[in-house]
Amino acid sequence: MIDLRSDTVTTPTEKMRRSMFEAEVGDDVYQDDPTVNKLQELAAEKIGKEAALFVPSGTFGNQLAIFTHTLRGDEVIVPSSNHIFVHEVGAPAVISNVQLRTIDDPYGMPSIDKIAKAIRNEDIHNPRTGLICMENAHSSGKVIPIDYLENVHKLARKCSIPVHLDGARIFNAAIALNVDAKQIASSADSVMFCLSKGLSAPVGSILAGTKDFVAKARKGRKLMGGGMRQAGVLAAAGIIALNEMIDRLAEDHENAKLLANLLDEIPQIHVLKDQLDINMVFFSFNTIEPEIFVGKMLENGVKINPPHEGIYRFVTHKDISKEDIYTVVKIIKRIVKI
Amino acid sequence: MIDLRSDTVTTPTEKMRRSMFEAEVGDDVYQDDPTVNKLQELAAEKIGKEAALFVPSGTFGNQLAIFTHTLRGDEVIVPSSNHIFVHEVGAPAVISNVQLRTIDDPYGMPSIDKIAKAIRNEDIHNPRTGLICMENAHSSGKVIPIDYLENVHKLARKCSIPVHLDGARIFNAAIALNVDAKQIASSADSVMFCLSKGLSAPVGSILAGTKDFVAKARKGRKLMGGGMRQAGVLAAAGIIALNEMIDRLAEDHENAKLLANLLDEIPQIHVLKDQLDINMVFFSFNTIEPEIFVGKMLENGVKINPPHEGIYRFVTHKDISKEDIYTVVKIIKRIVKI
Amino acid sequence: MIDLRSDTVTTPTEKMRRSMFEAEVGDDVYQDDPTVNKLQELAAEKIGKEAALFVPSGTFGNQLAIFTHTLRGDEVIVPSSNHIFVHEVGAPAVISNVQLRTIDDPYGMPSIDKIAKAIRNEDIHNPRTGLICMENAHSSGKVIPIDYLENVHKLARKCSIPVHLDGARIFNAAIALNVDAKQIASSADSVMFCLSKGLSAPVGSILAGTKDFVAKARKGRKLMGGGMRQAGVLAAAGIIALNEMIDRLAEDHENAKLLANLLDEIPQIHVLKDQLDINMVFFSFNTIEPEIFVGKMLENGVKINPPHEGIYRFVTHKDISKEDIYTVVKIIKRIVKI
Amino acid sequence: MIDLRSDTVTTPTEKMRRSMFEAEVGDDVYQDDPTVNKLQELAAEKIGKEAALFVPSGTFGNQLAIFTHTLRGDEVIVPSSNHIFVHEVGAPAVISNVQLRTIDDPYGMPSIDKIAKAIRNEDIHNPRTGLICMENAHSSGKVIPIDYLENVHKLARKCSIPVHLDGARIFNAAIALNVDAKQIASSADSVMFCLSKGLSAPVGSILAGTKDFVAKARKGRKLMGGGMRQAGVLAAAGIIALNEMIDRLAEDHENAKLLANLLDEIPQIHVLKDQLDINMVFFSFNTIEPEIFVGKMLENGVKINPPHEGIYRFVTHKDISKEDIYTVVKIIKRIVKI
Repeated sequence: MIDLRSDTVTTPTEKMRRSMFEAEVGDDVYQDDPTVNKLQELAAEKIGKEAALFVPSGTFGNQLAIFTHTLRGDEVIVPSSNHIFVHEVGAPAVISNVQLRTIDDPYGMPSIDKIAKAIRNEDIHNPRTGLICMENAHSSGKVIPIDYLENVHKLARKCSIPVHLDGARIFNAAIALNVDAKQIASSADSVMFCLSKGLSAPVGSILAGTKDFVAKARKGRKLMGGGMRQAGVLAAAGIIALNEMIDRLAEDHENAKLLANLLDEIPQIHVLKDQLDINMVFFSFNTIEPEIFVGKMLENGVKINPPHEGIYRFVTHKDISKEDIYTVVKIIKRIVKI
Repeated sequence: MIDLRSDTVTTPTEKMRRSMFEAEVGDDVYQDDPTVNKLQELAAEKIGKEAALFVPSGTFGNQLAIFTHTLRGDEVIVPSSNHIFVHEVGAPAVISNVQLRTIDDPYGMPSIDKIAKAIRNEDIHNPRTGLICMENAHSSGKVIPIDYLENVHKLARKCSIPVHLDGARIFNAAIALNVDAKQIASSADSVMFCLSKGLSAPVGSILAGTKDFVAKARKGRKLMGGGMRQAGVLAAAGIIALNEMIDRLAEDHENAKLLANLLDEIPQIHVLKDQLDINMVFFSFNTIEPEIFVGKMLENGVKINPPHEGIYRFVTHKDISKEDIYTVVKIIKRIVKI
Repeated sequence: MIDLRSDTVTTPTEKMRRSMFEAEVGDDVYQDDPTVNKLQELAAEKIGKEAALFVPSGTFGNQLAIFTHTLRGDEVIVPSSNHIFVHEVGAPAVISNVQLRTIDDPYGMPSIDKIAKAIRNEDIHNPRTGLICMENAHSSGKVIPIDYLENVHKLARKCSIPVHLDGARIFNAAIALNVDAKQIASSADSVMFCLSKGLSAPVGSILAGTKDFVAKARKGRKLMGGGMRQAGVLAAAGIIALNEMIDRLAEDHENAKLLANLLDEIPQIHVLKDQLDINMVFFSFNTIEPEIFVGKMLENGVKINPPHEGIYRFVTHKDISKEDIYTVVKIIKRIVKI
Repeated sequence: MIDLRSDTVTTPTEKMRRSMFEAEVGDDVYQDDPTVNKLQELAAEKIGKEAALFVPSGTFGNQLAIFTHTLRGDEVIVPSSNHIFVHEVGAPAVISNVQLRTIDDPYGMPSIDKIAKAIRNEDIHNPRTGLICMENAHSSGKVIPIDYLENVHKLARKCSIPVHLDGARIFNAAIALNVDAKQIASSADSVMFCLSKGLSAPVGSILAGTKDFVAKARKGRKLMGGGMRQAGVLAAAGIIALNEMIDRLAEDHENAKLLANLLDEIPQIHVLKDQLDINMVFFSFNTIEPEIFVGKMLENGVKINPPHEGIYRFVTHKDISKEDIYTVVKIIKRIVKI
């Protein structure tokens, strides 16, 4: 099977499995798990923050960041296309009792001016603006430039508002921007990134920030049910992910570009070439009904998601080789002909 | 003093005061207040709904509607310029734990297609779309056409989603549209309207809907602290408001148009003529600093609010006569000359 | 009709109605209502706090106090028999996201030691104890001694926890304790008391505390929908309530004692004599089915509530005279004979 | 090190590690992880429910059960000594907006009559009773008899209220009661149990119930951030836990009884013999200061928790052998002599 649905489908490497097998573990609720502690130190160092916390998922990390930064009743500014608004089941209102103030932008980059206008002044009718959320790499497949993030952070600091970065794929962004991930994270007060997805660890994400922030988040993690016990078995894979799997993401980006180029040669397919910064290829393709296309692909051993608002997304990752790309394109060409 | 800040500043009429003085009252938590009961019946009849509930404010009525219609975790669709999102202190996330999905539109009328796209399909990442909120008249000073509301309602019904109408100024809308308020309300499952504001009752709003809805809302009102005792003293004024104060709103609209025309003759002032449907006049005026302008007006006996994003809003109401309009314009002309 | 269900049924006096008729009013959301402002100053002075806020109901005032004192996720200590836990529809978890830690005591006076044990230490499993709530007079009809409240306050201060006093009937407590209400309120950081109930204003309660607390509460009041407009019409009655209706509560207490004594002479009735501190009489009476008793009383012009866990509560108030007491007892004696 | 702090400190067995190493995995958010699916089926079968869901922790499972069963604003009945109230950081008010109604009982077994009285009738002042929570084995070290649970369930069903069982240590309870765990679970609509703790899996718990309940809970799990990806690595250990680790819990119980008997021979120590149903030993011991005792034990290679309200708890588990028990007692005897 060639699975192009997402990089969340990546399976752990042999080395990860071995490290899980051998992991020294303890009870992490007591902060006794040496492997979790080691991962957290490594993660903080890699992302350039004082401290880090291991959490069960990216959604968990984002929601915990919101919970930790805000007061009940705050408003949180977030671009309308960001994961926190679109894909997290409305959790901010449930868990943190905050109102999202979305700013329309398909690529998570509304103008600084629009963000500035969205910040509330003190008035009896207004919630306090308690947080600004950014996402890099953005789930549109685009990467947000460093100077944009810096400008957001500058504005936020001027207004004493913290910035949280949903960096689920921050290492993909770093490769696309050709910078260290620390540099991206430096424009945020907290950052979440995933050890699963492209980095291929089976489970888990990191929430990083100042020591005080992480200490507070640790308690919020317990409240939210994310206090796990011998989590060192997962952390062991996370350590491999951070130490050995980051650089190879470049390969996924290359494969995505290759796939984009090959798909674009098919007349019925229109690739969105300005959304090609990372390991994702977006394209429209209307000559075959989605259910039929998805079904045919599956028959041919390729798993894909149905299109969202008419747009397909294919995602490359560790378990997709260059050859797989050629295979996929061959299959599509065959299907298109029908 | 001429107070142009809002129609919320209207004071009760002599007749209202007399009716309050004479009101037969009882304990409304026991549903024993005959005047409250009478007001609620009258309000339901005037707005064309099965039942109605007296609440302390418009914000209370809107939030109670959200609380009553939705489940915790739902998403509520609302145009980005609506009172519920802009001016209710982030209450929906606090009281009802719902996420607002705002759709950008300055006049509360995003295209039906945009609303349709904002409705979530069933997916593990998606909150349920639990409510659509409209506002008529809209706080931009514009009125929403009947057929637009009908189309929203049709879409909503197709998706089994209720519609709540923030009709704080529904009777202004009815006059502008030259229809009965019932006709506007018929495109919503619940409607809130204010007895204060243009109708000049001192305190209170109405939330109306089906009998079941109102029975459920009654309990939510108690939870939210809106169970008042001898509220008949307020309801008495509300009855006058509904019986005698609706038709005279036309006068406020005329005065607003007069004010708009006169202001527009002043070269430094630019009136937003497409936002002139009701008792509000919006204009930009940049040659004098806002603080100075507001201060000078006050010195001359005219209370106005500072501009919002560069736009001033003047509101006409029962306590503003035609002569007041001429006086105000005279004063402004004098100030402008400085 | 003689209405013994509650002192919430009291109707406004002629003088109150007149003051409402004549009240100078303004828009209280703009803090422009001179009568509301006057009431708030008077209320603060009467209760010995820096500032006070007018709210639509006692439940509203209590919930607003919780909302203002606590952070989301806090735990609030409250005796299990208090109104906040028993009669406020579970609002603390909905509006403020706090967990109530109830301490069992039928009279709202658990031992100081039990309260001390209920305060959480810092631990990853523990919510922060964010507030302690007391109630005086207690709805059991008992009054809590000054020194008990002082000891609670001392303990709370030692732990940096604020104390809120539900003083819905604080003036009844003051009369029973023969102290100034200020002295009771001095053991709390915030206090809520009702202008309705025994004091007979038609609508409204007061939340009082420091200036900072009240400023913060004012915004919370808006969020909760309690921002009313020309509330001066209600405040006018509240001013009469505070200036002229407090002392006469002693009469209600006397009538309650008279009623208790007369009822206790009836062999089938057992009066709970240790719950006779204020204007309430509790008794058990089992020889006639509750529905029948309540129905017979109504036929004879006396409104009473059905018993709660086998105990009836009769409440005296301004609209119940000494003669009414004799009439009621006569009626009961007649019914008992059947 | 001998670690008596909790059975949460158990480390995975060699066989678990091997199964994790070899686990076939997929993306569980897509329900594609065969090992998670296999665990969930096995778990449902073992506990006698239609379906089961893997969650990151026991707290997560309990909170998800509350979130799934209740509506915002409900009241949840729970004995005052239960984990849900005492040790879950106040989460029910934060995540589910429900009010806990605790009933005092040190062993999680208040009388059925007290529970019946705690169920609210329909009244405008009352929240709806939305759930009853039980805990078996109880964290007091006691086990709740089958017939008690059946009576609770009978009462609950009569009132159409679901019952959730916190069965973190349900298999310990089953051994102590000499029944199948299914029989315990049959008195609850949903049950949570832990694969970690005595069963020694590194991470994870199960929430089980009807198919509909689990489908709804799956979405709540995503909202709460518990949607993990290749969770099969953890599920693999969970399968071993359920298939091979249940029966050996009897050994932990024997070791606990042995430890209790030996400790009780020490004159300074008073063992609470009625809390000896499972793998926990509770005792008081006051002749040495807690910090000194805990410190001395640590010096001698034994980790223990400080006492809670004067009571120590020692917990036996897979990593504590019979010999360890003798060693521990020897060390304590030596310390006591000082």
